[in-house]
Amino acid sequence: MKEQDFMAHAIKLAAKGRLSTQPNPMVGCIIVKGKNVIGEGWHKRYGGDHAEIEAIKHCKRKFGAKKAMQLLKGSDLYVNLEPCSIIKNTPPCVDALITYGIKKVICGTLDPNPKINGRGVKLLKNAGIDVSVGMLEKDCKELNKIFFINQKKSRPYIILKAAQSLDGKIALNNSASSWISNSQSRKDTHFMRAQVKGILVGKNTAVNDNPSLTVRLSHNELGLTKSLPIPQPTKIIIGDIKKVTDAKKIFAKNAKVITSSRKSGLVKNNVEHLQYKNKNFLNAFMGDLLARDISSVLVEGGQETLNAFITNNLFDELVLYTAPIFLGKKSMGATNLESPLLIKEAAKLKLEKLEIFDGDIKATYIA
Amino acid sequence: MKEQDFMAHAIKLAAKGRLSTQPNPMVGCIIVKGKNVIGEGWHKRYGGDHAEIEAIKHCKRKFGAKKAMQLLKGSDLYVNLEPCSIIKNTPPCVDALITYGIKKVICGTLDPNPKINGRGVKLLKNAGIDVSVGMLEKDCKELNKIFFINQKKSRPYIILKAAQSLDGKIALNNSASSWISNSQSRKDTHFMRAQVKGILVGKNTAVNDNPSLTVRLSHNELGLTKSLPIPQPTKIIIGDIKKVTDAKKIFAKNAKVITSSRKSGLVKNNVEHLQYKNKNFLNAFMGDLLARDISSVLVEGGQETLNAFITNNLFDELVLYTAPIFLGKKSMGATNLESPLLIKEAAKLKLEKLEIFDGDIKATYIA
Repeated sequence: MKEQDFMAHAIKLAAKGRLSTQPNPMVGCIIVKGKNVIGEGWHKRYGGDHAEIEAIKHCKRKFGAKKAMQLLKGSDLYVNLEPCSIIKNTPPCVDALITYGIKKVICGTLDPNPKINGRGVKLLKNAGIDVSVGMLEKDCKELNKIFFINQKKSRPYIILKAAQSLDGKIALNNSASSWISNSQSRKDTHFMRAQVKGILVGKNTAVNDNPSLTVRLSHNELGLTKSLPIPQPTKIIIGDIKKVTDAKKIFAKNAKVITSSRKSGLVKNNVEHLQYKNKNFLNAFMGDLLARDISSVLVEGGQETLNAFITNNLFDELVLYTAPIFLGKKSMGATNLESPLLIKEAAKLKLEKLEIFDGDIKATYIA
Repeated sequence: MKEQDFMAHAIKLAAKGRLSTQPNPMVGCIIVKGKNVIGEGWHKRYGGDHAEIEAIKHCKRKFGAKKAMQLLKGSDLYVNLEPCSIIKNTPPCVDALITYGIKKVICGTLDPNPKINGRGVKLLKNAGIDVSVGMLEKDCKELNKIFFINQKKSRPYIILKAAQSLDGKIALNNSASSWISNSQSRKDTHFMRAQVKGILVGKNTAVNDNPSLTVRLSHNELGLTKSLPIPQPTKIIIGDIKKVTDAKKIFAKNAKVITSSRKSGLVKNNVEHLQYKNKNFLNAFMGDLLARDISSVLVEGGQETLNAFITNNLFDELVLYTAPIFLGKKSMGATNLESPLLIKEAAKLKLEKLEIFDGDIKATYIA
C-alpha cells in the first residue's frame, strides 16, 4: 500500500461512525510499521474512545501488550483529523501518541475547532514527532463537512429538503394530503433522517400534516450494528404548539421535541421551548440548537419554513426530490421567494449529486 | 459475429441517417454470406436509395458485379425495418431482394405504415424467401420512434422543452429577458433542434423574445458529413403574426415559416398560414404539419403553448432543463396547468434519461 492508500483506508474506517459520532467528527486511524498495518480503529460513538486510542488498543489485542509497545515505538500513524489536544470526554490523544513513541503522524486536515486548530500538531512537533498535514485533505473535509460547518459557523449543518412535482409544487390546495414522491424516495429520506441530529418543520406542517418525523428503518437497512440504537433525531418545530393533540404523532412515545417562537410554549416532559424576542430569530435559534448538540438539521418544510432558511441564507444543502407529475396552479409551491431583478443576480447553487429512485429524481445542491 | 450482432450493426448504420432521413425512417442493412459481411448500407437521406439497395450496391462495388451476383444469391439480409413493398421515391426493395436471390431476410420490426405493415414480409414469403421478424425489436422501434408515432397517430413526434429554475420558472416578469440555462445546455438544445423537422413557439414567445429558432452548430459539432446541408427546421408559430417586424429574427433570411390561427395570416414568400375554424385546432394543426412532412416538432414554449400541448395530451417527450437558481414568485412558470383533485389522479410521466450539463440538469420524460 502507498501512503495515500493508508489515509484512504483511515477515511473508510472513519465513515463507519456516520450514524453514531455526532456532534463529534468521524475519525479513523491506521498505525503502520514498515509497510505493515499494526493497528487500526475508528471513533465509534460520541463519548467513546477516539480513533487513535482504538487503534493502539487494537494493536495491543493483536500482538499482546509487550510486543505492541515495541511495534508502536517508531511507527507511523495515519489519521483523517488532527489529533485532539484537549480533554472533553476522554484524555487528549496527543499525550498517548507521545507516550507510545509514535515517530510520524500524518493527518488529513487540521481540526477546525478553534481550541485545537494546529495546537495538536504543535504539541506533537514539540515532542519531536514528525507531522504532516493535508493528505487527501479534500476527502477528509468532505467526510466531516458537518463538523467543519459546526466549528466555523457555530450552527448546525443545515439540509433543506422538499419533494415536489415537475412544476415545483409540494401539496394540493385541499385536504387531500398524500405523498408526492414514491416509496423508494421516501425510504431514502429516512436514511437522510438517520444521519442528522434534528428534523425541523414549520408549525403549519406540524399541525396540518401531523407527521411522525421518525426514522422508520431497521438496523439492517441502515447498515448499523445491533449494539447501537436506531438514531432518532430530535424533532424541532418553528412555532409554538398549543396542545399535544395539535401534532399528536410528533409528541408520541414521549419523543424529544424542541419548539421555538416569540411566545410561551407547551410545557411537557421531554419538550423544550425556546422563546425569542426578535421576529427573525432563525440565526439565534440555530446557534441554540448547536449548543444542545444538534450538529445537523434536516429541514422538511413547509413553504414558509423553506423560504425563511433560503432568504436568511441559512443552509448548506438543498435536496429536491422531483416526481414525474404536474400538480398545477392551485397547488402550493415548495418555495415562494422574492424574485431577483435580473436572472444573473439570482444566487447560483452547485449541483453536487444526482440520483434516480424509481423514476423520481433526487438532486443535491450545495449552497 | 452472432446474428444479433449483425442486427445491432444494422441499427448502428441506420442511426447515421438521424439528421437527414426524416420524414423517412432510419434504416440500416447488412448482407451476410456464411459468416462474412458481403455488403452493408444505410438510408442516407429522404429521396435517396433505401438501405437494402445501398447494401447491394456496396457489395457490387466491393466484389465486382459478377462475383457480387454469385455472393448475393443465397445470402442472409439483416435490416431493422421491414423492406418496403410500395413505390414512393424509389422502386420497392422487396422486388430487388427477390431478384438477387436473397435466401433469408431478418427484420427487426414490421413497418408501421398501414400500407406496408406485413405486406413486405408476405411478398418475400410468397417468393420463397425465409423471413423472420422481431430481432432486437425494442431497439429497432426506439430508433424509429418518430416514424412509428407518425404512422400510428398521424401527427408529428412532439417534444416539449423548457429551461426552468428550481422553482419551475421560465422568465422574470419584467423585460429583462435572459437565458436561464447555461451555454452547454443551450448547445444541447441546438442538437435537439437539428433532429426535428419543425420548431414551434407560441405567438407571445415569438413576439416578446424575438428568437431566431435556428440550428447554430457546425457540421463538425453535429457530426454531419459536409455534403449534407445543416438541417434548419421549419419555424412554426401558433398564432398569427401581423407584420414581419413583430418577430424579425424568425423571418430572417427568408426562412420557411408556418403560422396558424382562426384569423387570416401574414402573406409573405416562404410563409404559409393555416387558418382554422375551431377554437382548439391543435389536433388538426398537428395533422396538417405531418401532411407537410413535418414528422417531428420541438415545442419551445411559452407557458400557454406548453399548457395547450399538455392539456390536449399531445406530446411524446417532455424535456426539462433545470438551472440551479430560484426565480421567485413574480416570475412566470413553465406551465400553469389545472390541478388534479387527488395526487394519485395526476398523470405520471416516465423518466427516460437524466443528463448533467455543467450543473444544469436535463431530464427527459416520456408521456
